[in-house]
Amino acid sequence: MKIKGVAYRTIWVNDDGWSVGIIDQTRLPHDFVTTSLESWEAAAHAIKAMIVRGAPLIGATGAYGLALAMRENASDTMLDKVHAALLETRPTAINLKWALDRVRNALHNQPAVDRAALAYKVAAEICDEDVATCSAIGNHGLNIIEGLYAQAGGKRTINILTHCNAGWLACVDWGTALAPIYKAHDKGIPVHVWVDETRPRNQGASLTAWELNSHGVPHTVIVDNAGGHLMQHGRVDMCIVGTDRTTRQGDVCNKIGTYLKALAARDNDVPFYVALPHSTIDWTIRDGLREIPIEERGEDEVTIMRGRTTTGEIVPVLITPEGSKAANYGFDVTPARLVSGLVTERGTCEATEAGLVALYPEFA
Amino acid sequence: MKIKGVAYRTIWVNDDGWSVGIIDQTRLPHDFVTTSLESWEAAAHAIKAMIVRGAPLIGATGAYGLALAMRENASDTMLDKVHAALLETRPTAINLKWALDRVRNALHNQPAVDRAALAYKVAAEICDEDVATCSAIGNHGLNIIEGLYAQAGGKRTINILTHCNAGWLACVDWGTALAPIYKAHDKGIPVHVWVDETRPRNQGASLTAWELNSHGVPHTVIVDNAGGHLMQHGRVDMCIVGTDRTTRQGDVCNKIGTYLKALAARDNDVPFYVALPHSTIDWTIRDGLREIPIEERGEDEVTIMRGRTTTGEIVPVLITPEGSKAANYGFDVTPARLVSGLVTERGTCEATEAGLVALYPEFA
Repeated sequence: MKIKGVAYRTIWVNDDGWSVGIIDQTRLPHDFVTTSLESWEAAAHAIKAMIVRGAPLIGATGAYGLALAMRENASDTMLDKVHAALLETRPTAINLKWALDRVRNALHNQPAVDRAALAYKVAAEICDEDVATCSAIGNHGLNIIEGLYAQAGGKRTINILTHCNAGWLACVDWGTALAPIYKAHDKGIPVHVWVDETRPRNQGASLTAWELNSHGVPHTVIVDNAGGHLMQHGRVDMCIVGTDRTTRQGDVCNKIGTYLKALAARDNDVPFYVALPHSTIDWTIRDGLREIPIEERGEDEVTIMRGRTTTGEIVPVLITPEGSKAANYGFDVTPARLVSGLVTERGTCEATEAGLVALYPEFA
Repeated sequence: MKIKGVAYRTIWVNDDGWSVGIIDQTRLPHDFVTTSLESWEAAAHAIKAMIVRGAPLIGATGAYGLALAMRENASDTMLDKVHAALLETRPTAINLKWALDRVRNALHNQPAVDRAALAYKVAAEICDEDVATCSAIGNHGLNIIEGLYAQAGGKRTINILTHCNAGWLACVDWGTALAPIYKAHDKGIPVHVWVDETRPRNQGASLTAWELNSHGVPHTVIVDNAGGHLMQHGRVDMCIVGTDRTTRQGDVCNKIGTYLKALAARDNDVPFYVALPHSTIDWTIRDGLREIPIEERGEDEVTIMRGRTTTGEIVPVLITPEGSKAANYGFDVTPARLVSGLVTERGTCEATEAGLVALYPEFA
């Protein structure tokens, strides 16, 4: 999508032909800064420190991380070691495993001399496919928004609530949950987005708001506590979120707090959609609550906030008392029973095994 | 309760016999600072700027505000004008109206010369009664915690989730939702409190955590998004929150986000209690969703966070992009159907008109 009129993706190979350019997402929304990854360790760090984040972008970064490693040493040992090291950086994101496996499988039994070039090629394919996938998700989600707009007589703005950032910054382009919103906006349907700030890392307030603002989509930032109240008062026409991992039966593991919004949507008859590329589906598990490990992150993300001072510096500030500890769960699981539909690149289905398998018969 | 071993209330008359001492709660949790109110305008500002907050403490501050006004000018005109001005500072809190009415009624038909002294006397009564009320709420809530502890075989810590600050800092002493926790802790029952940070003003992370820390009650700060996940995994034995206004049928208007926790509690069979003094009950209304006006506050509370820098300064930092607007709803309404019980100074009842009227037959 565009930033001040210039088209960007979130990850690219630089003009030198090998180093990998990314946007430093920890500097958003205050500063737009790009940075260059020149080693697999830098790629691993970028994922772990959330300089890049979002399931599809994590996968793409992992793939380029393997390519950078192969450039350095294309042995089987190195391939396995770096695959394992990159996989460890974000254990919950199934996309990362999918992308790393895809690169490793492509390299398997290939001569060492060809491996680096091949890894770059597969990483580029992963990126291009992600763009096509997100665009398709956008088209299918657009149908839902058009339906709501028609229901409203084509006479008023459609209010959409989203949690965290499942926009183009989380992918390579377009986004998942935000793709339908961009498509609707570009088509002239009046949409307004309620942006959950998404504590503790504020990906909504910092990234989703920044994206929508850059593209000119009307939006309002709210605290994570506010969505229920808005739904009680008819101020939300639909919710749409992304997912880091979806089970075979349609349970959705997404940013912590997603489950609370799904409960409020159900209690107020607001449709609750989840947008996902097939790569986030984990066909090997059914019960998300029991089978998905939830990442616990450092307590500093809860106790310390970062923001811009009145003099323009970006600084961390402590918001809890000395002596109080904090806990930081990265994700929660929204049971399939609370999900109105899964919006995939192949169409929208109900959040059940039957629904998913109808779209993906190859996994029946 | 105690701060570093010294017993405090949240509001008191200073040694000069007329100025009113309060704790500047906007400086917590980083600095413990007391300040002196010497005019009714200062009292109004303290309420509006949330230097004091919490339904009972707002009421007590309003009462002392009228006393300060009567010292200056004890006319009927002044009494009515200041009553109206103080009432406007926080329109949602029913306690404020209750306390202001009580002082005005006591002064009505009294000679001007006696009014200031009488107002101070009524304000002091309001404070002493609040302490007795909160202590009684604590005792009734303690029974619930003791019941859960017995159910657990007396063998493990009881985990209690709370939202916002309904502790002694919100009252004159003890608190409402936290009173049972203090009583249980003091009695040797092992309790641990999950403290919702409570965006946008972070009363949980700053005030509840500070209170519990000062008193030595084990606790962990979590983001508002985390409670549902904890309940899904059996990590919460009960929720208890305060309320700013409770309807005749038991609907509860409390800090924004309370409703989401009540939904999660219901979905996971976790008991959800609301602690309240009778003064927060609005007997004139039934349907909280339709009848309670929800205060909208400035967007700066969402877009700007305050915290302590590494060099010890308390500074505001911007956390949203330039150009993104924000909305800030202060409260939401939790329907009575989601409330397991109302813990009042007269005992615990079901959240229904019948339940409340059984405890308060004078309002039948």
